[in-house]
Amino acid sequence: MYSKEIEAIFKSKNIAIGDSISLALGDGNFTGTIMPRPDIGDAAILVLKQSNGYNIGLRIGKGAKIEKLSIPNKAHASQRHAPIFGRVLPKISMIYTGGTIGSKVDYVTGGVYSLTRPEELITDVPELAEIAEFKISNPFSILSEDMTYKEWQMIAKHAAEELNSGSRGIVITHGTDTMHFTASSLSFMLSGLNAPVVLTGAQRSSDRGSSDAFTNLICSFHAAAKSNIAEVGICMHSTSSDTYCDFIRGTKARKMHTSRRDAFRPVNNLPIARITPSGGTEYLSSHREISKENKRKVVANTKFENRIALIKAYPNSDPAVIDYYTGKGCKGIIIEGTGLGHVPTSPSDLALSWISHVKRANDSGIVVGVTSQTLYGRVSENVYRNLRILNEAGAVHCEDMLPETAYVKLGWLLANSKKEEVKALLKTDITGEITQRTETDWFM
Amino acid sequence: MYSKEIEAIFKSKNIAIGDSISLALGDGNFTGTIMPRPDIGDAAILVLKQSNGYNIGLRIGKGAKIEKLSIPNKAHASQRHAPIFGRVLPKISMIYTGGTIGSKVDYVTGGVYSLTRPEELITDVPELAEIAEFKISNPFSILSEDMTYKEWQMIAKHAAEELNSGSRGIVITHGTDTMHFTASSLSFMLSGLNAPVVLTGAQRSSDRGSSDAFTNLICSFHAAAKSNIAEVGICMHSTSSDTYCDFIRGTKARKMHTSRRDAFRPVNNLPIARITPSGGTEYLSSHREISKENKRKVVANTKFENRIALIKAYPNSDPAVIDYYTGKGCKGIIIEGTGLGHVPTSPSDLALSWISHVKRANDSGIVVGVTSQTLYGRVSENVYRNLRILNEAGAVHCEDMLPETAYVKLGWLLANSKKEEVKALLKTDITGEITQRTETDWFM
Repeated sequence: MYSKEIEAIFKSKNIAIGDSISLALGDGNFTGTIMPRPDIGDAAILVLKQSNGYNIGLRIGKGAKIEKLSIPNKAHASQRHAPIFGRVLPKISMIYTGGTIGSKVDYVTGGVYSLTRPEELITDVPELAEIAEFKISNPFSILSEDMTYKEWQMIAKHAAEELNSGSRGIVITHGTDTMHFTASSLSFMLSGLNAPVVLTGAQRSSDRGSSDAFTNLICSFHAAAKSNIAEVGICMHSTSSDTYCDFIRGTKARKMHTSRRDAFRPVNNLPIARITPSGGTEYLSSHREISKENKRKVVANTKFENRIALIKAYPNSDPAVIDYYTGKGCKGIIIEGTGLGHVPTSPSDLALSWISHVKRANDSGIVVGVTSQTLYGRVSENVYRNLRILNEAGAVHCEDMLPETAYVKLGWLLANSKKEEVKALLKTDITGEITQRTETDWFM
Repeated sequence: MYSKEIEAIFKSKNIAIGDSISLALGDGNFTGTIMPRPDIGDAAILVLKQSNGYNIGLRIGKGAKIEKLSIPNKAHASQRHAPIFGRVLPKISMIYTGGTIGSKVDYVTGGVYSLTRPEELITDVPELAEIAEFKISNPFSILSEDMTYKEWQMIAKHAAEELNSGSRGIVITHGTDTMHFTASSLSFMLSGLNAPVVLTGAQRSSDRGSSDAFTNLICSFHAAAKSNIAEVGICMHSTSSDTYCDFIRGTKARKMHTSRRDAFRPVNNLPIARITPSGGTEYLSSHREISKENKRKVVANTKFENRIALIKAYPNSDPAVIDYYTGKGCKGIIIEGTGLGHVPTSPSDLALSWISHVKRANDSGIVVGVTSQTLYGRVSENVYRNLRILNEAGAVHCEDMLPETAYVKLGWLLANSKKEEVKALLKTDITGEITQRTETDWFM
């Protein structure tokens, strides 16, 4: 509810939320659609969605003149989308977990707050109802930076249940910052997956004219409802315009820009598919396809060893941080090394060499994996002598895996595999996280 | 010296290092130029540079038939480059510090070893003598992964001395893995720079046919001898072919691929210039230009606080690692946050929140800077509530700086600025490391 004054005007003019109005204030004239009052908004601030897509918050004092207009407004186009009879749509499940895609701008403070009702988002995108019959669940609402393996486990279990109950595919809305960590975790946790599991989100909140939320949601619904992909992936804008989205393998995706809508990129891989908002799907690389013969249930192997760390090796870096982690009971460490997977080996100050620390950790049963901070490309254990020294100290070079993927994989392996097999499995492809050959056009 | 047997054949046929020969062995016929015996090579293995640019190592036993050829060979084309009289070439200084550009393959073990004589490299690239009159120094030979701030200090002092003694520009050959750290450090350490300081290297050792060493060296010599750039930069292949190199601002460059020749990319910036091997130079973005009026000497401010750390925030990450570093006497920490510069703030397990740890570090006088692990884009301190919480805990969001650059800058500021100014300076552009506005075409 807005303030008494506003509600009184509404009553006198027979105006309701969703109606188009014109509004004359001291500082200008405005037209737009009346939006619901934000949960934490000032009741005297009326939120209007303008025709340019932007919302504006206007303080309604004395002298404000409001008139109802009869122009239909796109923001409430959902009214045009009555149920379509005589057509059977695929059934998909949407798991709503929070993040920017579920956030709106607070027009009082200018900050962004988290939306608690996923329905608000869905009613903004009536096209979704034409793609699939869907149900929404909201197991929790957490911002990207606050996600932990416990949320990964909940999502994995929930997705498996939905798929085993007849869903054709899953769309998971998620904050973007750590979406690739979650996508990696689901890739390992969902065993026997025979359906698309699509993570999506937005770089701009859904009430901004430039929001990528709608295109991302629509393309993700197409991917979940119609694609032949039996993998976990991220489906987000491929370019800075709304032309299409890329479906990127979950273990090969990475957020590469703080704010651009096309921030997600495949690293050492091509996108699996390119999907347009009208549903056109072009498959760009080989992937696990849905098998109609496979009637087995998907199994959620959600155990996770969270006593692991991801650390970076760089000039002057302190190798004793390895001992810090092992001293705290850490069971595995992924190093983001330099270049082909180096750590400081024979620096002028030998106290800065990482080798003896890696060896000590390895000798005490800690698994140490090595990736590269270049992100693109493959590490090696033998091109240079110092790589061989690191390998002899017990470290495992993790092929062309992203540091983030290697981190998630290690936590999953330590909880789900035999201890003596973890090192070998870390270098073995399980779910598309390691490619045997990297093509030259996979760089940027 | 090769083995007695090989030297005896050389003597009987009047053959010397650098001569072209044909060689018939049990397993084939070969032609090529005789290369010097590698320092650690087996004396009975003759190294031949073939016309395809690749070297081959051949064990010379009984039955080997060697004949001297009179065909001139590109590998010794330097003989064609007699001094050019009547032309005054710019004087530049080359500082040779090791790395792949100074490495060759050991044809016995197949590994790569470090070359100790920079002259070997230079004689392979006779073109350099046509670009500049140059002198070579070799203060040390260290692999990229073993570089520390002590080597940065030596290079900075040495470069300043050379420039103050009349050098027009500096070319520094360096291992590629941490080249961008060194380039950043020189950018801050060389105050009043009025000349190009060019770092270059190679992704493939110089005796391989596909080596990028020659093009990189030639373009870097052009940059040092002729460009108008008064900045520190990295000059390496811009594409995977030998068409041209990019000169990238030292504080904005990053190695983005483990093995590609075009691994170095500008992040949140354009290259300053594009340089062809024939010396064509196209300036692509604004930069500090050489001023003929400026006759002041360059000053090397090489003090560096090495008690600093670069750490990553990620799901399930242990925030107590901050206490580990501060407990060891660390004076500054750069966090690679997620997205716009987040750390775990309100996770379901509050022991995983970084906020109180950042606050405690800040309260005890440690400077905490925040960058983004996305690498591209700019961090913010106020778009989301959690960013403001981190900012209120005392952390400084570092604009569009790379994590590596922020790390080097923090170590330099802590040693060269007043303590109370470090935080403000971390957010202030000093040498091009922060751009005020990021253009959309600066992504990838």
